[in-house]
Amino acid sequence: MQWLGELSQKNDAKIILLIIDGIGDIPNEKGLTPLEAANTPNLDQLAEQSLLGMSTPVRPGITPGSGPAHLGLFGYDPLEWDIGRGVLESLGIDFELGPNDLAARGNFATIDSEGLILDRRAGRIPTEECERITKKLSQIKIDCVKIFVKPVKEYRFVLVLRSPDLVDGLKGTDPQKTGVPSLPVEAIHPEAEKTAILVNEWITQARELLKDEEKANSLNLRGIAKKPDIPQLPSVTKMKLGAIATYPMYRGLASLCGMTVIPTGTTISEEVETLRENWDSYDYFFFHVKKTDSYGEDGDFENKKKVIEKTDKIIPKLFKLNPDVLVVTGDHSTPCPLKSHSWHEVPTMIWSKHNRKDAMTAYTEKTCMKGGLGHIKHQSLLPLMMAHSLKLKKYGA
Amino acid sequence: MQWLGELSQKNDAKIILLIIDGIGDIPNEKGLTPLEAANTPNLDQLAEQSLLGMSTPVRPGITPGSGPAHLGLFGYDPLEWDIGRGVLESLGIDFELGPNDLAARGNFATIDSEGLILDRRAGRIPTEECERITKKLSQIKIDCVKIFVKPVKEYRFVLVLRSPDLVDGLKGTDPQKTGVPSLPVEAIHPEAEKTAILVNEWITQARELLKDEEKANSLNLRGIAKKPDIPQLPSVTKMKLGAIATYPMYRGLASLCGMTVIPTGTTISEEVETLRENWDSYDYFFFHVKKTDSYGEDGDFENKKKVIEKTDKIIPKLFKLNPDVLVVTGDHSTPCPLKSHSWHEVPTMIWSKHNRKDAMTAYTEKTCMKGGLGHIKHQSLLPLMMAHSLKLKKYGA
Repeated sequence: MQWLGELSQKNDAKIILLIIDGIGDIPNEKGLTPLEAANTPNLDQLAEQSLLGMSTPVRPGITPGSGPAHLGLFGYDPLEWDIGRGVLESLGIDFELGPNDLAARGNFATIDSEGLILDRRAGRIPTEECERITKKLSQIKIDCVKIFVKPVKEYRFVLVLRSPDLVDGLKGTDPQKTGVPSLPVEAIHPEAEKTAILVNEWITQARELLKDEEKANSLNLRGIAKKPDIPQLPSVTKMKLGAIATYPMYRGLASLCGMTVIPTGTTISEEVETLRENWDSYDYFFFHVKKTDSYGEDGDFENKKKVIEKTDKIIPKLFKLNPDVLVVTGDHSTPCPLKSHSWHEVPTMIWSKHNRKDAMTAYTEKTCMKGGLGHIKHQSLLPLMMAHSLKLKKYGA
Repeated sequence: MQWLGELSQKNDAKIILLIIDGIGDIPNEKGLTPLEAANTPNLDQLAEQSLLGMSTPVRPGITPGSGPAHLGLFGYDPLEWDIGRGVLESLGIDFELGPNDLAARGNFATIDSEGLILDRRAGRIPTEECERITKKLSQIKIDCVKIFVKPVKEYRFVLVLRSPDLVDGLKGTDPQKTGVPSLPVEAIHPEAEKTAILVNEWITQARELLKDEEKANSLNLRGIAKKPDIPQLPSVTKMKLGAIATYPMYRGLASLCGMTVIPTGTTISEEVETLRENWDSYDYFFFHVKKTDSYGEDGDFENKKKVIEKTDKIIPKLFKLNPDVLVVTGDHSTPCPLKSHSWHEVPTMIWSKHNRKDAMTAYTEKTCMKGGLGHIKHQSLLPLMMAHSLKLKKYGA
């Protein structure tokens, strides 16, 4: 990002990055993708004026989680910036991490009388059980450390330890199989040894409190890490960046990168209204549509198609605001036949006042494969958006 | 470049790299680019026999200056090899830099009685004034240092200090804004401190000589650096490389990389004549057409088109020489609507006796977007040209 920071310059141009989560798909038994089957007159008209292509979130073949996929969209190399699971899980429950916070993803587990793991997910206890048990664990005290134990869902929770003395560099306790005991937290370098002792002390106290639970009679911690010291987009890009997203995880990721999270509602229409109201206050908007991904994960072709059609209807509303650059893409593909995120490239288009045009007249996987933008990396999208809005100075003389 | 050096082998094949400066464009209000509007029967016929694609000079989104763009064409990573402005400016006036030379780009400036900068360009004094004042500054003497002060244009000049003791690593004096004083030259590491003292001594003497000038009563130095110790193409490629260019900057860049600069005239016809006369003496020719870029910078669609048509006419003359490889491309795009260099990819085609063919029948932005070469980096062109002329050995067994 260093060159981007050196070349970036302020101007009045406005950028919208429209992320249709999990938009990419592969043909179903009828040979169609939701994007091909959907009626999308506005996206297709936009395609006529845009440069189309395919974008790879991380590297060819890598199926990304939401974290790495969005880091790519935000201009980072997701292989360079590894966000710990504990941090991601905290972002996912809207827990704001500070610089002194060490976050871990916790899993309740069931162990036998000898301490061997019987079930790494404690029989997927109901979320209400998780809430009751995390409340119980909140009574644990450790000197000079502020402790937060927050329920997530079913057997999952978040542990945050807050103290200026905590150091990154711990290995988790989950042995990733049953029939064996949990591992102790270990430091991977000497500076983290005191922190390892503190976390192990918390685990000992917690297991003592859990021992009479029927199912959740133990726990494991994974991805124990601090918030990474990632370059902040406002200083790199000299833009004011606003994030509009209905799910906490995406708001958290945007906030991690220095974007301002703008409060919004739960529907796409409310997100558009938020955009409209805040149009004058930002140079760049990350606008996130979630449900395409959720329906892809369910394998629900019809509903994924409907969300795409609903998203199509907002395009004229975005243009009423007179943006200078609009990029439409997804964070990754979530093909219905696979019912999961995938490694497939993401259909992408760049519209601006200065883009080249190819001869494509629709926004689909097939047209994007043939588009004039070619095959790019997510990481190139931020510089390309800034270039198309004349926010990058010439490099060299 | 290391692997290229290890794989390169000598043979009799001959390569021409035809650079049409700033060739790439974006559609005008009629939806056409100069390349699309131009009548180019020879380039189009060549396209039928070639592999077409788009090439990125530095990185997606980066608008390169001529220096980085040509370094890419010559096989270097332009982000790795940063050529100082002083060096580029020296190349631009045909001043040959040696290994003991430290070059700076100088700007005359106007300051007020308290030393605060009023005008960073000294009211753009005429070039004749610049010549008079640089002559005055040429009387400055510093022990054991040979000094050259050369006019460039208007308020711009070049300062070269020559001594075996000079060390790279200085920050310039230009604060990049008015109302503040100039900065002292500072060393960015201890080894450069003595050099900083010398340059500051020159500046003090120079400002004393300038103090009674009406407009150019002060100066700033930028991009103070030595010629970089860049790998030399003759030893890397085992080719004899000749450069034919009408403008000094391009000759200087070629020379920096180890090419032999072949004297030529000021027109494309004279450049072709130079090529013909020197055909037997080189393996590789860098052939530079300048005016497409100049007209692009002026936003002059018609004249850019005419230069393209003029360039089209030389293609049969190049083929009369029986080359083995001919690459047609530009250093960067200079779209008329933007009147400046841009980040857009550059339409590129590779003809040789061994290339694949796509189905393209014209050389335009649109055909190159769809071409079989795909989207490459400038840096790949040198290895591709060498491969297509069988100048690269097999890698590994």
